[in-house]
Amino acid sequence: MKLILVGFGFIGKSLTEAIYQKRDLLNKIDKGFKLVGVGARDGYLYDGEGLSLEKLSSSRRVSEYSPDFFKGKSSIELIENAEADLMVEATPTNIVDGEPGLTHIEKALARGMHVVTANKGPLVVAFKELTDLAKKEEVELKYEATVAGALPVFSLVNECLQGDRILKISGILNGTANYILSKMYFEGTSFELALREAQERGITEKDPSYDVEGIDAACKVVILANALMGRNVKFSHVERVGIRRVTPEAVSLAKKSGYVIKLIGTIDKVLEVAPKLIPETHPLCVHGTLNALHLETDLAGEITLIGYGAGKQTISAVLNDIISVMKNQTKA
Amino acid sequence: MKLILVGFGFIGKSLTEAIYQKRDLLNKIDKGFKLVGVGARDGYLYDGEGLSLEKLSSSRRVSEYSPDFFKGKSSIELIENAEADLMVEATPTNIVDGEPGLTHIEKALARGMHVVTANKGPLVVAFKELTDLAKKEEVELKYEATVAGALPVFSLVNECLQGDRILKISGILNGTANYILSKMYFEGTSFELALREAQERGITEKDPSYDVEGIDAACKVVILANALMGRNVKFSHVERVGIRRVTPEAVSLAKKSGYVIKLIGTIDKVLEVAPKLIPETHPLCVHGTLNALHLETDLAGEITLIGYGAGKQTISAVLNDIISVMKNQTKA
Repeated sequence: MKLILVGFGFIGKSLTEAIYQKRDLLNKIDKGFKLVGVGARDGYLYDGEGLSLEKLSSSRRVSEYSPDFFKGKSSIELIENAEADLMVEATPTNIVDGEPGLTHIEKALARGMHVVTANKGPLVVAFKELTDLAKKEEVELKYEATVAGALPVFSLVNECLQGDRILKISGILNGTANYILSKMYFEGTSFELALREAQERGITEKDPSYDVEGIDAACKVVILANALMGRNVKFSHVERVGIRRVTPEAVSLAKKSGYVIKLIGTIDKVLEVAPKLIPETHPLCVHGTLNALHLETDLAGEITLIGYGAGKQTISAVLNDIISVMKNQTKA
Repeated sequence: MKLILVGFGFIGKSLTEAIYQKRDLLNKIDKGFKLVGVGARDGYLYDGEGLSLEKLSSSRRVSEYSPDFFKGKSSIELIENAEADLMVEATPTNIVDGEPGLTHIEKALARGMHVVTANKGPLVVAFKELTDLAKKEEVELKYEATVAGALPVFSLVNECLQGDRILKISGILNGTANYILSKMYFEGTSFELALREAQERGITEKDPSYDVEGIDAACKVVILANALMGRNVKFSHVERVGIRRVTPEAVSLAKKSGYVIKLIGTIDKVLEVAPKLIPETHPLCVHGTLNALHLETDLAGEITLIGYGAGKQTISAVLNDIISVMKNQTKA
């Protein structure tokens, strides 16, 4: 399996480190496993014989890896010319038009490459189009890292609950909003103060409305609804209320009655992101930057999955997708 | 895929109901799916053309299904003579010598049948022997339902965390002990009173020491250690302290400091079941009869899975195992 990676930011770099660290495991699954290309902002690297994982995992930029890289050339050129079986998409998220990830994924699928994306933008704007294209090209499109980071939500449902029907999904889908609400709950601080602290800790987006107005969570609701409940919905279908108006008084009043205010994404008859009262003893009620997903199913009843929704831990999900594709290929 | 079911108690009956209810899904995966035999205490049913799922799912005993059943004949005879691809083992748990499940599983594997077991006894006494036998016979041995009921622990690790190394596992692995401790925590009652209420609700074994002395949880520690962390351990390797000596005073003292006493099974350097102080805000801290499993891994960091550890929900795990075997067969 020959792999190209498009996007060499935090996720892309963390992935090359993990692939280097796990090279024995990957070679055991497929001894032809190679990373042959890396696309970045300033150009791309390509070597059909395989790039050096060791060197790459200690490079901050592709130019640091080699002065002879394809400077200034676009990743699209890499995708169009590389001999590769799988592309990992890890460019920054853009939920307005999905670019540049959307074009990257379309071109890779059209060339018959499997795609693993850590970038949710393309799925938010074109879930059905992309899954249809993958089906037509008879390749896999996997996206475990796009919702709730390290939590293996999609593979949990598709591999571990194969006999169950999912009736309802609700979850804490944004770690920054959860950090802010947890701060308000435990320390009685105002929303503004808690937001400022989140910003100082570097866990918010440049524009915090992405987190605190539920935009990011709503994107995840769209993907969950389409992927796990057979819907065909877009961002505009999600009713959305953020947490800016949650007051310390409301938090304190809830607390006195054994409840916690959490920003919950819900996939039920309606799709919604809104602050909700959750009993403090409910499995969904997790704090700090943790994410949580609560599934109601016809057989298992209720299952909750809790873990890190962002950061380096997300690589677990990307790597699991890559290994799944590799195993399916070696079987075929 | 032709299936035989051995054991027609609560789990066996619930499974036939679920198979009947999900027949369209199962036939879609493999149109040759049939339940051809059912072994019970009073004899067995066998029909190579397939038993009626509808009739079976409303029968309380095999004799009710048909007066012409193999009355008084042992399930071993069914296993030895049936033309079947998969056996589901659902006889009562016996952790002393694993019987009768152990013999059932050995005979089925030796005949080249895949095995799905909901009965943990055989795995507690002979995990390595059975997994080695399955390997030798080139068949699958699956046991998702044996630990934490409906929680898909094994498939989570094997299918959803394929790139991760499991560093440590800890969990609430017995719902009855958790019910008792939750009662003590919320209502301040004594251990004896909480136990009596659990008994009245019918959620204890006849001999409650199985639950309250951590015997059941220790069995699950053995299976988790062997299956997920490459150990080769037996029941005697688990250090074990039950909850009989947990006093309302200790529970109350812990509560004042934000902690809850929970019976925790741990798979680390040592294997242990013992009451532990868990922060009330920790994801593991779930109440009532819920089970919870907390995994520490090298990539994902920490992942917690919460759900029902017993009862009808367990069928979700049995059915997922059956479907996995079916899918692997249709691929092969």
